[in-house]
Amino acid sequence: MERKVYIKNTPLEQALDLFLQELEESGYFTLDKERVEVLSSLGRILASAAYARRSSPHYPASAMDGIAVWAADTYGASEINPIRLDQNKYMEVDTGDYVPQDFDAVIMIEDVNYEQGKAVIIKPAVPWQHIRSVGEDLVAMDMIAPSLTSIGPYELASFVTAAINEVEVVKQPIVAIIPTGTELLDQGSDDMNPGEIVESNSKMLMALCHQWGAQAFRHEIVVDDQELLLQAVKRVKDQADMIVICSGSSAGREDYTSTIIEEVGQLLIHGIATRPGKPAILGMIDGKPVIGVPGYPISAQLVFTLFARPVLYKKQGQQIPAATSIDCRLARKIASTMGVDEFIYVNAARIKDNYLAYPLNRGAGITTSLVKADGVLHIERGQEGLEAGSICQIVLHKPQELLDRTLVSIGSHDLSIDFLADLLQSHHNIRLVSTNAGSMGGIFSLMRSECHLAGLHLLDEESGDYNISYLKKYLANQPWVLINLLHREQGLIVKKGNPFSINEIKDLSDNKIRYLNRQQGAGTRVLFDYLLGQHGISPESINGYHREEYTHLAVAAAVKNDTADCALGVFASARALDLDFVPIAEERYDLCLLPDLIKPQYVDSLMQVIGSRQFRQRVSKFGGYSLRNSGETIYPVTS
Amino acid sequence: MERKVYIKNTPLEQALDLFLQELEESGYFTLDKERVEVLSSLGRILASAAYARRSSPHYPASAMDGIAVWAADTYGASEINPIRLDQNKYMEVDTGDYVPQDFDAVIMIEDVNYEQGKAVIIKPAVPWQHIRSVGEDLVAMDMIAPSLTSIGPYELASFVTAAINEVEVVKQPIVAIIPTGTELLDQGSDDMNPGEIVESNSKMLMALCHQWGAQAFRHEIVVDDQELLLQAVKRVKDQADMIVICSGSSAGREDYTSTIIEEVGQLLIHGIATRPGKPAILGMIDGKPVIGVPGYPISAQLVFTLFARPVLYKKQGQQIPAATSIDCRLARKIASTMGVDEFIYVNAARIKDNYLAYPLNRGAGITTSLVKADGVLHIERGQEGLEAGSICQIVLHKPQELLDRTLVSIGSHDLSIDFLADLLQSHHNIRLVSTNAGSMGGIFSLMRSECHLAGLHLLDEESGDYNISYLKKYLANQPWVLINLLHREQGLIVKKGNPFSINEIKDLSDNKIRYLNRQQGAGTRVLFDYLLGQHGISPESINGYHREEYTHLAVAAAVKNDTADCALGVFASARALDLDFVPIAEERYDLCLLPDLIKPQYVDSLMQVIGSRQFRQRVSKFGGYSLRNSGETIYPVTS
Repeated sequence: MERKVYIKNTPLEQALDLFLQELEESGYFTLDKERVEVLSSLGRILASAAYARRSSPHYPASAMDGIAVWAADTYGASEINPIRLDQNKYMEVDTGDYVPQDFDAVIMIEDVNYEQGKAVIIKPAVPWQHIRSVGEDLVAMDMIAPSLTSIGPYELASFVTAAINEVEVVKQPIVAIIPTGTELLDQGSDDMNPGEIVESNSKMLMALCHQWGAQAFRHEIVVDDQELLLQAVKRVKDQADMIVICSGSSAGREDYTSTIIEEVGQLLIHGIATRPGKPAILGMIDGKPVIGVPGYPISAQLVFTLFARPVLYKKQGQQIPAATSIDCRLARKIASTMGVDEFIYVNAARIKDNYLAYPLNRGAGITTSLVKADGVLHIERGQEGLEAGSICQIVLHKPQELLDRTLVSIGSHDLSIDFLADLLQSHHNIRLVSTNAGSMGGIFSLMRSECHLAGLHLLDEESGDYNISYLKKYLANQPWVLINLLHREQGLIVKKGNPFSINEIKDLSDNKIRYLNRQQGAGTRVLFDYLLGQHGISPESINGYHREEYTHLAVAAAVKNDTADCALGVFASARALDLDFVPIAEERYDLCLLPDLIKPQYVDSLMQVIGSRQFRQRVSKFGGYSLRNSGETIYPVTS
Repeated sequence: MERKVYIKNTPLEQALDLFLQELEESGYFTLDKERVEVLSSLGRILASAAYARRSSPHYPASAMDGIAVWAADTYGASEINPIRLDQNKYMEVDTGDYVPQDFDAVIMIEDVNYEQGKAVIIKPAVPWQHIRSVGEDLVAMDMIAPSLTSIGPYELASFVTAAINEVEVVKQPIVAIIPTGTELLDQGSDDMNPGEIVESNSKMLMALCHQWGAQAFRHEIVVDDQELLLQAVKRVKDQADMIVICSGSSAGREDYTSTIIEEVGQLLIHGIATRPGKPAILGMIDGKPVIGVPGYPISAQLVFTLFARPVLYKKQGQQIPAATSIDCRLARKIASTMGVDEFIYVNAARIKDNYLAYPLNRGAGITTSLVKADGVLHIERGQEGLEAGSICQIVLHKPQELLDRTLVSIGSHDLSIDFLADLLQSHHNIRLVSTNAGSMGGIFSLMRSECHLAGLHLLDEESGDYNISYLKKYLANQPWVLINLLHREQGLIVKKGNPFSINEIKDLSDNKIRYLNRQQGAGTRVLFDYLLGQHGISPESINGYHREEYTHLAVAAAVKNDTADCALGVFASARALDLDFVPIAEERYDLCLLPDLIKPQYVDSLMQVIGSRQFRQRVSKFGGYSLRNSGETIYPVTS
């Protein structure tokens, strides 16, 4: 059994240059044209300049409601000496009506009186007044729009006006997408087996093609079999202008793409020096581009955007739309490998007068990083990583104004934060971006002014109170406000039916029970360590003490999926995944706000949402929560 | 016969507030929801937050190609003391494969050697290394996106991954558009009668609806008959969420919209204090909005954008997308009526370090102003007009980067300028915006640094040369370069067959011949005045001397359509409209460039296009042109 383990690392620009150049030389970028009816041309691109077929107006037209006259007939008219025109000396016209050759001026209806069928005029008309001349808007043979114009509502209306019924437009490139992988399913369901993966990449790439003006179709999933994949490629290659093979998730033995391209076409690149995206494959078959896209969604998105996008725009004679870039202060340090172009997706938001960038989870399998991303940070090949606080350029994927109406919450995770986000979005047009960094992480972000608010549930072991002593210590030099969001039950999350009969903390010091811990700095971790100390249990006696997850739902999911037997977490998580729950303690979960950094109306909106019927209903429905002090100001204490 | 002549002028914000408030009170803005398949949800708006239906991955998955092991089995492995794992102690896994419970770590294939079926390890594995935990990407019940999120490629892919097969989205509002007017035709053709107008507004409004996330359908054209219009309204009202009645071009007797709204619904506003857009009508029928849109295209566009757009966005729970605004220096003075909100469409471009705004033709019937517009200048009700040179805020309709790659040409009109524009666009990604202001207008614009170049053909009566003496006089203090574009024939444009036997200038001093003049400052006007002087003909003896048009094509169109008998112009215009032509003189048409204001690479591009085979072929094909000096530098003279 042979496996191909290493693949060549071609630098990004070199790979793209080679790809574009080879396609250019094969004549690929010649514009393909077609004629379409004007009414279905919206959003299409003109392949050649559009010239008016006829003038508009194509006749002398009245510009007013009034009467058409021969100007000379009205000379000398005045209030003292009105002129009375007989019915054969004037004609009633409405705006847009034809003004025949017998007349050379129009008088507004407001300036006309009628007396016994005669029109009475008290002011002379100037020749050609209120008459729109032929071609005032468009003259036949006027160029309405040059080649490569994108046809919008106004171009379309002008074409119709100029009697253009058909236009020559650029053909939309057709992209064939072939998903491959024995492990892939077309659609997710409730009874998927371990190892089965829902095939989503082809759907993402098709949607991207659509955004870039191309059409896309999807071949059915091809299992890992070189001959079947070859047949699929042969089947689509004459119908498509670009072939995309979405690899299974492995760069190893299941990857036949490069072999097939070598066999029926020309392999150009196998492996690029980017992260993510490394196993990208570029080639040509019959002078058409073929792209082998890695299986991890973020790698797939990046490779497709780096290579398919410029090819598809160029094929349509278009430049890639310019993106907005903004300078941001980096909230966290980023490590980077020298010699590789790195692309890091970030959230971005405005905090007071600065834009901050928050790097998202860099795992190539994290589709949610794509959903969350406001933009991308490109660290070029020669650069090393970036320190926290350094200024970096972010290419935005979303409108900049969104960053201006974003609230950043960094701290402990609670499911109710999602409800806040949903209600702030739908009722107040405020985006709440929440990052789980644990309660201590939240406090450090508040200290560095890198968030507007933080969710906290830090037990003070001495006083038994929550949060205040920590905030007094760490935020001694800045104003802060603490609002109670809710109280919640913490307890042991166990499998349905509690098969190991776990009823208290000390049941965990049985080495058979696989515990799953929360990360250091999380309020739940602080609580767990406190509970262990209280019971005199050594951390080392807990099987899994060093295995960490970052959210309540993540630990619950591990129990649900039997990769752990127990974890400390909130009731809501246990309930969300239909698990059993052994209550251990009730804790207070507060929001700490930095009034200097949040616009007052955003604080108002937040308080409105916290007090709203919808929020209270949704939280209560989940269970394990108490709202008895919700919305109350804990600190500063008001008399 | 009664006519409604005056209509009430409601201030813009008041009209909009009333409209939105009435709709709000009638419950119109409740979100309408529907469920759609995820695969057809691209571009739709989530009506409720989307929660993951299952975790991804939903099993512990290998993050690498390699072998799954029980970490404890590898403890102590080193180069000196390799550990050999039997086949039942490891399992080969590819990226994404399930890692069963018997294993708790993955070792990369690069770190494994095989010896007689055994896997040889030289480094111990850490528990859970290279294993993606359940829910690493998404945990069941995670909120993927809050309500009112617009679904893009990444959301779609995440939904698929989370086994969401259907989503609840906001229903697209349906807009019914009823065009009315006896003068209207569905489509333009070569044999339209005077007074007939191609109905283009409904098509423009439908395309705008599409851009705003709504659907639209069009009722067939209704002639001016109140009963028929009433029937049409009744026919569409139950199928639509908004009814739009596109009036014929008249605000007078053919306008039945308001009467009908009063009859079957509630009339709110008739007439708003905007320019254009004054005769707008707003009302409600069965709690749904009805908008009466004026017939002139620019008025229609403005009224629809001012009133339908906010209603349609709000109906979908969305904010109107924020537009980019930039500060521009106004190239021309703008008069404005106090008490009216004025909207002026402008071209905009960057000249060196300034953005300049060039007001476009303000006629409400000029559809080309909409096509050309880069943005709009809103002069508020309390404001007076603006002086040339004042700084004004332009709300952009087009991307700002377009303004940075725009060349502005102001001066004399020649058809070949359109060819330059087309070729610069398609081969060099440069937009050429050309405004016809006559040769003298061009010189004044050059003086004020308001354009990059100007097309000129100003005869110096004394020397017989062109352009140079004028430029030396007016541009004495700044560098300029003069390039010949072409020579062209000027002559008398007459009807086919020359029915009045016009053969020379003095034939025009026959009062029967209707002459059409070019505007003052146009090179052709200078030439005409020169020719009259040469022949001793008084301007007053020319019938039509004071009637002016602004382009060669416009005067030709007037002759073609028999609103004039003769005009001085270039051969190309006569030929374009299939008219006869009596040659009078050949003239030199040059481009004057301001090297300080144009990027050198744009000058290169321009010179390349002028010298290109395509340009020369297209010009030659038109006839009446000579390219014998085309592309040569006339001034400064090079030795």
